[in-house]
Amino acid sequence: MMRIDVLTLFPEMCESVFGTSILGKACEKGIVSLNAVNFRDFSGNKHNSVDDTPYGGGGGMVLKPDPIFAAVEHVLKESAGPLGDQESLATGQAASGVKPRIILMCPQGKPYNQRIAEELAREEHLIFICGHYEGYDERIREHLVTDELSMGDYVLTGGELPALTVIDSVVRLQPGALGNETSAVSDSFSTGLLEYPHYTRPAEFRGWKVPDILLSGHHANIEVWRREQALKRTLERRADLLETAELSPKDLQALKRLKENDPQ
Amino acid sequence: MMRIDVLTLFPEMCESVFGTSILGKACEKGIVSLNAVNFRDFSGNKHNSVDDTPYGGGGGMVLKPDPIFAAVEHVLKESAGPLGDQESLATGQAASGVKPRIILMCPQGKPYNQRIAEELAREEHLIFICGHYEGYDERIREHLVTDELSMGDYVLTGGELPALTVIDSVVRLQPGALGNETSAVSDSFSTGLLEYPHYTRPAEFRGWKVPDILLSGHHANIEVWRREQALKRTLERRADLLETAELSPKDLQALKRLKENDPQ
Repeated sequence: MMRIDVLTLFPEMCESVFGTSILGKACEKGIVSLNAVNFRDFSGNKHNSVDDTPYGGGGGMVLKPDPIFAAVEHVLKESAGPLGDQESLATGQAASGVKPRIILMCPQGKPYNQRIAEELAREEHLIFICGHYEGYDERIREHLVTDELSMGDYVLTGGELPALTVIDSVVRLQPGALGNETSAVSDSFSTGLLEYPHYTRPAEFRGWKVPDILLSGHHANIEVWRREQALKRTLERRADLLETAELSPKDLQALKRLKENDPQ
Repeated sequence: MMRIDVLTLFPEMCESVFGTSILGKACEKGIVSLNAVNFRDFSGNKHNSVDDTPYGGGGGMVLKPDPIFAAVEHVLKESAGPLGDQESLATGQAASGVKPRIILMCPQGKPYNQRIAEELAREEHLIFICGHYEGYDERIREHLVTDELSMGDYVLTGGELPALTVIDSVVRLQPGALGNETSAVSDSFSTGLLEYPHYTRPAEFRGWKVPDILLSGHHANIEVWRREQALKRTLERRADLLETAELSPKDLQALKRLKENDPQ
């Protein structure tokens, strides 16, 4: 069973997401164990403070190294079980031989993508460190974490939503996490292209009709139409993806035709 | 006051995030009103079904247009207040004159970034539509939404975490949302560069020391060091950001020196 720990100042928020939908079901099925750990419990001081002003001045607060190191070490000890020993802790490796990935969510990290999701999905133990509107003491980055991940070029008040997003994308890749009925749709990026348009009932809604071809019953023609629509959408919206997508000679012909019809 | 509605099948999860930290405080201060709307309440059928199989075959389920249109129209009517009338609803514009942005979270959308956050932060009313492991009927995309946003090139089980992420990044930009003590740090991207390293107490932790310069008290030197560290980190990790960052002649000199010292 995969184990994921989230170090956060807002464990209730994380637990609410852990209990919902696919994540909640994956926990129930025993596919993954999701744990929120409040690193304020590891402050080591009577004021329970986890941050302090930055050396060198400037605004804002910085997360101190001590509570984060202590919380990670607690998790490593717990996950090692009764066989956990000092040596394995010192090397960041549990007695089971599992070396967890310790992941810092921050804008300075590597931009997250589906390839990283697939890589993390093969791990047995992930530990996420989520700061909240503070910066992190650099020694956490240098001496504790194995990975720094960024969700994109925007500023958030905390690392919790990014961590939960990564967790969602990783857990849904675990065998059995998605039911049959929910597995197929929405897999943009599995083909390297954006998805083709979907339609369901009613066939006419407020005068807007489903394309005739989808009602035709000609499955081969529908496949061709869908592939062309996926190519068209990717060309229009995210031409950058075409550089890395797997394209057949037929796809390349279709793209050439699309570009000729709609020169931009 | 800014108003944000999230159309979702998991309102409790959204509400839990709305009540936490900066978002919770922004609601308490009356800076923003955050509402989760379960669009299953607008299914219009006795089975409360909101999805159906795709026309043309294939796996997965597709969200039907009816419940989403009905839920959006309910929100528009509610936000228009007692002056709401049929005409304003027909044009998607409340009687107050506010035309809300209706945002679909999907991998086919425009990649989200800080510039879009700043643009959305100036709006008075945002409506987010979150699908959950299904695709969307194309007519929602064509005839209802004003914006499609993507959080990145990875697959998730639902649009909730992306929508909550956008909301977090937008609300923190509202005047008064961040306290003074929390506003300065973490603003990567405001300068166009990644942030310089932060350090706080203790000055020595497990043998790892804070750089001497930060303890020197020479503020001008500290500023120079921090700027160079920001340039160095951006060069090493995200050289793409240097193309759009605002760089002074001094920055360009520092970059030249950094490139010469560490040729890659």
